[in-house]
Amino acid sequence: MQYTIHAITHNKWDNTIPPIMTISDGDVITVETKEASDGQVTPSSTEKDLLKIDFSKIHPLTGPIEVKGAEPGDALEIEFLEFKHKGWGWTGVLPGFGFLADEQYTAPIDLQGPALKIWKVDEKYAYAKFGDLNVKVPIYPFPGVIGTALPYRGKLSTIPPRENGGNMDIKHLTIGTKLYLPVFVKGALLSIGDTHLAQGDGEVCGTAIEAPMEVTMKVRLIKNIGLTQPLFVAKKVKEMEYEEYIAYPGIDPNLWNAAKKAIKGIISILSKYMTPVEAYILASVTVNLRVSEVVDVPNWIVTAYLPKSVFDTNIDVL
Amino acid sequence: MQYTIHAITHNKWDNTIPPIMTISDGDVITVETKEASDGQVTPSSTEKDLLKIDFSKIHPLTGPIEVKGAEPGDALEIEFLEFKHKGWGWTGVLPGFGFLADEQYTAPIDLQGPALKIWKVDEKYAYAKFGDLNVKVPIYPFPGVIGTALPYRGKLSTIPPRENGGNMDIKHLTIGTKLYLPVFVKGALLSIGDTHLAQGDGEVCGTAIEAPMEVTMKVRLIKNIGLTQPLFVAKKVKEMEYEEYIAYPGIDPNLWNAAKKAIKGIISILSKYMTPVEAYILASVTVNLRVSEVVDVPNWIVTAYLPKSVFDTNIDVL
Repeated sequence: MQYTIHAITHNKWDNTIPPIMTISDGDVITVETKEASDGQVTPSSTEKDLLKIDFSKIHPLTGPIEVKGAEPGDALEIEFLEFKHKGWGWTGVLPGFGFLADEQYTAPIDLQGPALKIWKVDEKYAYAKFGDLNVKVPIYPFPGVIGTALPYRGKLSTIPPRENGGNMDIKHLTIGTKLYLPVFVKGALLSIGDTHLAQGDGEVCGTAIEAPMEVTMKVRLIKNIGLTQPLFVAKKVKEMEYEEYIAYPGIDPNLWNAAKKAIKGIISILSKYMTPVEAYILASVTVNLRVSEVVDVPNWIVTAYLPKSVFDTNIDVL
Repeated sequence: MQYTIHAITHNKWDNTIPPIMTISDGDVITVETKEASDGQVTPSSTEKDLLKIDFSKIHPLTGPIEVKGAEPGDALEIEFLEFKHKGWGWTGVLPGFGFLADEQYTAPIDLQGPALKIWKVDEKYAYAKFGDLNVKVPIYPFPGVIGTALPYRGKLSTIPPRENGGNMDIKHLTIGTKLYLPVFVKGALLSIGDTHLAQGDGEVCGTAIEAPMEVTMKVRLIKNIGLTQPLFVAKKVKEMEYEEYIAYPGIDPNLWNAAKKAIKGIISILSKYMTPVEAYILASVTVNLRVSEVVDVPNWIVTAYLPKSVFDTNIDVL
């Protein structure tokens, strides 16, 4: 069967919330999702509006959706078929949140925010201006949050990803990917939201290109497979592949600090062209953090890869 | 000018070693490199031979190569033009070395080694058998180690990467890439070695496909640029792009542990088809560790991506 599921939302992991819909193995569903702020950010918002955000409303998730016959020990296979956006998205730096929130800088370097970028989006790209540069990011929509109900009672935060999936923010959960999620409770109770149009591996400023959408996916029930956490099979996504990258290795005995050095290196390169906080936003949306090596004692490397072709002009590397 | 530089090697960072060759800005050089063990591993070696390895011989680096006119504060631009291998390579697990060296397992899971895989290599692929599976890995050769002389005296280990580059093990340092290295001493004193045919982001078992080569590169001198550590501009490398991946997210409040969970998840999937230590070797050569998110407090995600198409058969994900 094919169903449309409207955006009736919740924003805690709570396995006592009654399902908004019941589907069966093999059904295709089109699910409306709100963006991460639940309407507190709109296409006309400014950075000052970010200071008024009520965090108790973050992560409205559509669901839960019950899958008939699902039992603990089973798994759901979610195949992403189509994403429709509404022509806009946003990326923001919220004070106190993000990978570099604890870093201390002196003016003119300020990464604390609030800062906001509103993107115009067509079928292929998201567009925004950073400094004097026109930036064009190929889109590959995916849900920041998708998960089944947890095996334990409570009203748990949706911020950390967990064994049920949840706020994984993995950009490869896009069209062509099959995601496998464990079933911990009768009916599985699937929820989805926090949809993104594009994101770097890392999501360093704490937000991607956040956007409301309609997500079409096929849901299959796999019986008695004993999956204990998410995994997925992903196809190559041409929108994620760029022709050329500027890459900055972060070298440090601590992997976390290595990642910070890498991102700061990219922000430093970009800050010749835009404010540091704009660079931070752009890094969150386009820069990939890869673990280059974890074996060359005692210094590990995380390298940050910035795609050059999102700019309408050449970026100097030195 | 165009030069061939034979494999006269050293294996410490020591800025008092006299140069084996002097070149000028814009010269193209073809450099012979030994493989990482300096001939202690050969195409006929077995895993027992790894126990006899003399670690004081590891990382023979060809050089140092002096660049006329280079001064502290300058940078070298290294453009990789061509790599020629000798038809073979090796990947090994050396006891006490590697990302999972400290993990305790009970039989039948043994990741401690010694374990060795010898690869046959043609113009496009490296071939080896893992369990009953024929594995074929597209090659994109690169130097595991490339660096300039350090600004301080001493005979320093080549194992950790540093501000001079060195043992970065970054697989994107292949044909088409331009690497920028800081110059810390007069003449720059460039050294290169530890050449690899293919490697996953992470190099988790501690070795890639290790192979002797001839590396052709163009060296340019950039005056007075004040670079303090390596960075590079990389083109898309089609040999690194696979059509489909099995991906396992490692979710943990510690990024290092997240990476371990991800790799162990992939090893677990592969261990249906081969021994765990073979899976560890294959992960080192083919699996990419990407930092999916570092902002969803308190759980970060490193996801391990295993390319499906290196196998001659379908791999079950569940």
